Amino acid sequence: MGDIGLPTATAQSVVSSSTAIQPPAKNKLFLGTFIHSKTLAKLEFLHNAAVAVNKLGTIVAVSPDTDFAKAQNSLLPQLKWASDDTEITAAKPGQFFFPGFIDTHLHASQYPNVGLFGNSTLLDWLNTYTFPLEASLSDIPKAQKVYSRVIRKTLSHGTTTAAYYATIDVPATNLLADLCLSLGQRALIGRVCMDQLGPTYYLDESPAESITKTKECIQHVLAKDPKMELITPIITPRFAPACSAPLMKELGQLARETDLPVQTHISENKNEIALVASLFPDAGKSYAEVYDTFGLLTDKTILAHAVHLTEKEADLVKKRKSKVSHCPCSNSAITSGAARVRWLLDKGIEVGLGTDMSGGYSPSVLEAARHAVLVSRHICMDEGSSEERDKLSVEEVLHLATRGGAKVVGMEDKIGGWEVGKEWDAQLVGLHEVDSEDDGDEEGNVDVFGWESWEEKVAKWVYNGDDRNTKKVWVRGRLVHERR
Amino acid sequence: MGDIGLPTATAQSVVSSSTAIQPPAKNKLFLGTFIHSKTLAKLEFLHNAAVAVNKLGTIVAVSPDTDFAKAQNSLLPQLKWASDDTEITAAKPGQFFFPGFIDTHLHASQYPNVGLFGNSTLLDWLNTYTFPLEASLSDIPKAQKVYSRVIRKTLSHGTTTAAYYATIDVPATNLLADLCLSLGQRALIGRVCMDQLGPTYYLDESPAESITKTKECIQHVLAKDPKMELITPIITPRFAPACSAPLMKELGQLARETDLPVQTHISENKNEIALVASLFPDAGKSYAEVYDTFGLLTDKTILAHAVHLTEKEADLVKKRKSKVSHCPCSNSAITSGAARVRWLLDKGIEVGLGTDMSGGYSPSVLEAARHAVLVSRHICMDEGSSEERDKLSVEEVLHLATRGGAKVVGMEDKIGGWEVGKEWDAQLVGLHEVDSEDDGDEEGNVDVFGWESWEEKVAKWVYNGDDRNTKKVWVRGRLVHERR
Repeated sequence: MGDIGLPTATAQSVVSSSTAIQPPAKNKLFLGTFIHSKTLAKLEFLHNAAVAVNKLGTIVAVSPDTDFAKAQNSLLPQLKWASDDTEITAAKPGQFFFPGFIDTHLHASQYPNVGLFGNSTLLDWLNTYTFPLEASLSDIPKAQKVYSRVIRKTLSHGTTTAAYYATIDVPATNLLADLCLSLGQRALIGRVCMDQLGPTYYLDESPAESITKTKECIQHVLAKDPKMELITPIITPRFAPACSAPLMKELGQLARETDLPVQTHISENKNEIALVASLFPDAGKSYAEVYDTFGLLTDKTILAHAVHLTEKEADLVKKRKSKVSHCPCSNSAITSGAARVRWLLDKGIEVGLGTDMSGGYSPSVLEAARHAVLVSRHICMDEGSSEERDKLSVEEVLHLATRGGAKVVGMEDKIGGWEVGKEWDAQLVGLHEVDSEDDGDEEGNVDVFGWESWEEKVAKWVYNGDDRNTKKVWVRGRLVHERR
Repeated sequence: MGDIGLPTATAQSVVSSSTAIQPPAKNKLFLGTFIHSKTLAKLEFLHNAAVAVNKLGTIVAVSPDTDFAKAQNSLLPQLKWASDDTEITAAKPGQFFFPGFIDTHLHASQYPNVGLFGNSTLLDWLNTYTFPLEASLSDIPKAQKVYSRVIRKTLSHGTTTAAYYATIDVPATNLLADLCLSLGQRALIGRVCMDQLGPTYYLDESPAESITKTKECIQHVLAKDPKMELITPIITPRFAPACSAPLMKELGQLARETDLPVQTHISENKNEIALVASLFPDAGKSYAEVYDTFGLLTDKTILAHAVHLTEKEADLVKKRKSKVSHCPCSNSAITSGAARVRWLLDKGIEVGLGTDMSGGYSPSVLEAARHAVLVSRHICMDEGSSEERDKLSVEEVLHLATRGGAKVVGMEDKIGGWEVGKEWDAQLVGLHEVDSEDDGDEEGNVDVFGWESWEEKVAKWVYNGDDRNTKKVWVRGRLVHERR
């Protein structure tokens, strides 16, 4: 990243993050069943396997057919790891390790509003529910409360990486980054840029101010996590209607200079599309072209929604190698539309899943996956015939939730599956067995009767699973959530 | 009910139900906030109120502005209830009482298959997943395991009344009735009638056998619960394609003779509709007319799905005063379609909600309510414009889940709201307050930050609530579920 004259960070952090990016103290060995996405359509099941994770949180061995004894007698000596310097975590029978989920689009600042939208659609929802709440988070104690809660909540649902929108406020945005460092969640942190559309009390005063404040937030993250090992700053034009042409031009310039990722919204709602056309009559013929005109369609750009893209726009997105965050709960809840994921995938566009809180109501990527299945069925039904091909399977939505998301956030070399060299961002999943002693109250709504195949167990998890099934969560080898 | 020559019940019950329909031992007084549906579009909030429930489980007083002291000093003397003969349950601040949910359509026998349907649609789903499982429940220990679990599970989600399909097997169907009596869930219990379409190993051998076995199940319930205080037998032709014309004719006759309710499926899937047309060329021009020809469209008939009804069919359903069970999770999951609930309501047809396990994947009527909201939005989106009127609100789907369901099962005088004379079928709901001491793991995914109105709290419950928010459940005044 070149010298772009970033100012020194001045915002005071409320929490200490000194230990957050430190590696874990011991080597770690995980034993049991490991499931991950092999291809879009296929899961791989590794039973009775071992995964070794070094002190940096990196996977150094994936060893099939390795039980406790074999791990002790063969794998540890091979790795030159002493027993007393290695922490062993064995999945119980029926439990499995799954890659941590990647939430490619959510607004940390809107978390208190989940479930509140009445019958509104995008543009009135922003004014009624969203802008007042976001503006109120310049109150740092309130931001601390909200951001702590959203991080803990999403971690408890197995979200190991989150692409966050914060607010326009610099100290509160920096606080979100600090809290992610402290609580151990991998994150992309975006200060929201908007110099129009919002209410007067919630706007950047000028493009210049917007850029300056954005650089302050970038600098803050780089001061805390210089190698962006856990936190990555992300350039965040809210969406075209909220950004003037000069602002978008400068943000495109900043993206080019810094090589940082970009996130924004595209083509969520038909009224929004009409608004973009009216606001930027000279910038291009379509919503995608508007972003492209200003250099914001990069190969590191995350475009949320993409519900109503035209064929030509999708081709442009593909050409620029920009990515799409599919947010099915949000799109249904605020009546935006049904994004044609199969069509995007067929074009070769990378797609991940987003909860889009609080347009979406659920903190869970698993619920987003479930709804990706359901929305794909609505697309079949809308077409009036059985367009079987549009249907997304359980395997496919789990791919989007992990490998797909990893590509969308530009970390496919780091996270999303069980390969040597990747980092240990993982969740331990347990499903309730009806035969077991307890009555299962605290184990959630997945009931395993004993005759199910592993594929069926995974399907049951996707349809009825919740945070009760996510027993433990790790990021970079660090245990960041554990159910009591 | 006239003498129709019902045989004496012979099936042996596995559980004792002797105490099940007994009234509770003490009078009960409930204090706190009570919320129920006032009209389709409106909830009523009764704060600082008291509801008195006598030993029969009947509400005898609804008293606004009544705190603990006033209840002790004024209400109890008025009721001539001694303090030591009255059990008092006070909702904690933030908690509220809500009427128990009514699940108007679910297959108890399919519970182990929830979440398992792959990419199938109705007719192949039946053959691949459903018939083999249903047939296997003639094994009584297996039926005991499955039925106990589905009753406990739905109770834990606040379902106080369930309209169950069992299987074709008489002893297992009777066991389901016994278990409902024993565990205290109000239920309609239907032995499944089917003499065609199914595999040879899972069919009634003749219409006569189907009728005889149905009568055995009716007699069993009446022997255990003569006044049908908790359990009602329900005549259950599976759906037209699985029933020969002679069978449907005799079932229509049985419905007329017994005045018992009827449940079946209608117009769920387009291939099914075509199948009905081909199987019954002489019985009528439409699916609804087929049932009507055989006397199965009564004012006590519950029609599940009604996704693709024509205008004329809906008019016929309305004329016959038959009811509709809307099953949004199922309809989306197995790609059946999106039922136009507003259109049905506008016609004056009574609509309730059904989980339709295992076409539907979730045991929760609250989740069905949520999906009724979402599916109504898909209907708006499909029409390509903002047909705002088709949207169902949070208030409306809660009405369907309680008052609407009560009408669908013919119990609107007994259950669904807080009126004197109704029975105490209720749930105590608690939402997690972010300020509280615990970290909320066990309290579910609704986070209340403190600034929400009561309407907003209810919306948060509908969107993110689960069984963790249902703290206690009562049926006819009896406590039937309590979270640890």
